[in-house]
Amino acid sequence: MIKNIIVEPKRSAFKSLTIRPKKDAKKLDATVKEIFEQVESAGDSALIDLTEKFDRCRLVDLEVTSEEIAYTSGQVSDELKQAIGNAKANIEKFHAAQVSEPISIQISDGVECMQKSIAIERVGIYIPGGTAPLFSTVLMLAVPAIIAGCKEIILCSPPNSEGQIHPAILWTAQLCGVTKIYKVGGAQAIASMSLGTESVPRVDKVFGPGNQYVTAAKAFAMNYGVAMDMPAGPSELLVYADSTCVPEFVAADLLSQAEHGVDSQVILVASDSKIVDAVNKEIEIQISDLPRKSIALGALRNSKAVVIFDIELSFDFINEYAPEHLIIATENASDYVERIINAGSVFLGNYCPESAGDYASGTNHTLPTDGWSKSYNGVNVDSFSRKITFQSISKKGIQDLGATIITMAESENLQAHANAVKVRLNNLKSEEI
Amino acid sequence: MIKNIIVEPKRSAFKSLTIRPKKDAKKLDATVKEIFEQVESAGDSALIDLTEKFDRCRLVDLEVTSEEIAYTSGQVSDELKQAIGNAKANIEKFHAAQVSEPISIQISDGVECMQKSIAIERVGIYIPGGTAPLFSTVLMLAVPAIIAGCKEIILCSPPNSEGQIHPAILWTAQLCGVTKIYKVGGAQAIASMSLGTESVPRVDKVFGPGNQYVTAAKAFAMNYGVAMDMPAGPSELLVYADSTCVPEFVAADLLSQAEHGVDSQVILVASDSKIVDAVNKEIEIQISDLPRKSIALGALRNSKAVVIFDIELSFDFINEYAPEHLIIATENASDYVERIINAGSVFLGNYCPESAGDYASGTNHTLPTDGWSKSYNGVNVDSFSRKITFQSISKKGIQDLGATIITMAESENLQAHANAVKVRLNNLKSEEI
Repeated sequence: MIKNIIVEPKRSAFKSLTIRPKKDAKKLDATVKEIFEQVESAGDSALIDLTEKFDRCRLVDLEVTSEEIAYTSGQVSDELKQAIGNAKANIEKFHAAQVSEPISIQISDGVECMQKSIAIERVGIYIPGGTAPLFSTVLMLAVPAIIAGCKEIILCSPPNSEGQIHPAILWTAQLCGVTKIYKVGGAQAIASMSLGTESVPRVDKVFGPGNQYVTAAKAFAMNYGVAMDMPAGPSELLVYADSTCVPEFVAADLLSQAEHGVDSQVILVASDSKIVDAVNKEIEIQISDLPRKSIALGALRNSKAVVIFDIELSFDFINEYAPEHLIIATENASDYVERIINAGSVFLGNYCPESAGDYASGTNHTLPTDGWSKSYNGVNVDSFSRKITFQSISKKGIQDLGATIITMAESENLQAHANAVKVRLNNLKSEEI
Repeated sequence: MIKNIIVEPKRSAFKSLTIRPKKDAKKLDATVKEIFEQVESAGDSALIDLTEKFDRCRLVDLEVTSEEIAYTSGQVSDELKQAIGNAKANIEKFHAAQVSEPISIQISDGVECMQKSIAIERVGIYIPGGTAPLFSTVLMLAVPAIIAGCKEIILCSPPNSEGQIHPAILWTAQLCGVTKIYKVGGAQAIASMSLGTESVPRVDKVFGPGNQYVTAAKAFAMNYGVAMDMPAGPSELLVYADSTCVPEFVAADLLSQAEHGVDSQVILVASDSKIVDAVNKEIEIQISDLPRKSIALGALRNSKAVVIFDIELSFDFINEYAPEHLIIATENASDYVERIINAGSVFLGNYCPESAGDYASGTNHTLPTDGWSKSYNGVNVDSFSRKITFQSISKKGIQDLGATIITMAESENLQAHANAVKVRLNNLKSEEI
């Protein structure tokens, strides 16, 4: 159950109540720097050594072969293939709708400004290993990359001690059209895609979840000119529940988040203390059978229930917290949409669990945590492209706009900027004569 | 003139030819960290001390008063006001066209996914002081912030030794609707907006150009949960010119970039050595009268002319360089659009100088440098907002989608994720009975 219950906090307490547990990044940074240096100087052989060290497996080849991929097909059940196919179709449908049309605006006679979305050429996807084989994250990253039109999609994931990547990850990757797959995990995977090695190509942007080392490595990749999807932290869920919620469902949703990791955070904001009691009772019932019970218990210790009677104040708290996932567990959930300013992904109503969006409804599950939803959004098709601007100016266009540019440039003391217009205007004047 | 001329480089040389000069960031980082710590512990009084140290002016109040703003109106010429007004109208026209409509997609019966653009609540704009009063950058950042719908727009700019910000900056800021203006410059300005002080409000994202300390401070602000527009470096221009270019115009454009700073870089990619000679001749003529001649000369020393006969190879080079600004100095410029993959902003044709986009045509001039256009775009309306996803699922919706979610969750060993669906399906079954 959630033991930390705060009833009617003052607004001045919101800031401290919404702070996430801090971790010390210093030691991480030194390790990550060392790994980058190792990969920079020794390339593939560093990757093979680091994989032996961290994944207990000495590889001969880093790249997954087409034979390995073909073999995995038999190891994934038809039921799972069908489910992944359904999810993929939904994710494609929602992400295809996000493709931006080019914009072309005539600013004045002879001045045309355009904006065109162009895919990032080479992107890298990181899929962690560990207890949960996250093939769902392959869908969430590869599908929008393909829709955006990325030319090269590189996927790295750590092998198990037998030198294999989970069959469902490989099967999903080939289904989506990932270009190449490598058996590398951790910070060394991010380093390999940032620097390029004999085997692993260098990419322009890296995506995907991971532990603290992977997160630190993604930030460190900036030093090598490689962008990242977003700053990452432990996953989190905030549920807003009023008297029309179903406590059994709320408890199940909170537990689905809590099982992610002991560092996950779940927050229940309720309009009444009775709701917290009812949800806690349900948590006690449901948690007992969970395979990941001890993880969920750990996460619940970081978690809070906050009772706020006033709706306005509740949403001020929610927006200050800026949750990664936000469930509105009420019957009239759509009435609350206008109140939501800061969140990664929002789930409306009693029949809309977070796990729908985690897997199969169509929205993306790579989302900003740790309050970053105040300034970042989750991964979408735009994350895999850039909006480049173009302008086209005719003789008539520069003749009309020229004086404005010259006045502004000279007022900023940038004479050569003004001259670039003047040489053209003078040339046009002499043409007229 | 550009002395460094490379004729027909091999493709294998592209990488080294496109590398920008590296600077050592270590000392910067230590200074920036110290400034953040000072502002964190002493707030406004630290800002006043640091302003005295760096800007040689002891302030009493950090905030610009409405009287000061009113007074500036008389100090800006009507001609400049008119020019700024024209530019603002064009920038508004192009950026208003960038506003994203909400997306709502019915994925299946009872499953609806939506995406809605919501403005970042509080944004900070940094405008450097120094030799060029960059009121144009106020337009480029405040106009899209207003169009996006940001609630609070904070502007920081260093005062001169009399404690004043340039009148044209203040006038433009009030014209655009900036919420509050503070007399703080350098890394301490970024620190104040990232941490919040007694006077300066904390923001969610910082924007704007600046020297290396400002750039390092913007990256450091990430440690405090504050996002930045993009990683920044010295400004740069690449001109592609063929035999249909006008060498006089190309020279003027290269010089307009070169006058920015000695660390600016200009690159001329020409289809023929004769073009380089003609442009160099024009540079010699035009540079002699420039007030910022010594700066331009410095920048030209970092610069290169690259002669590549083959068009395909030329654009491979250009895309590998990934310029901030790209001018296509040819008569049939629009024919080249499809070849451009990596660039911040593109200027098409002989009558389209970079300075048009720097000031007044409507496109934004806050653009990715240092090769970052491979993964980042320039500032646009999206930079001031986030695309939040929403989903709404009915009883029917979860009944149809449930099995897919359960299969996937169980295959990822996340039982509580599956349970969040199962409790709902069981509840619906019992409703039916």
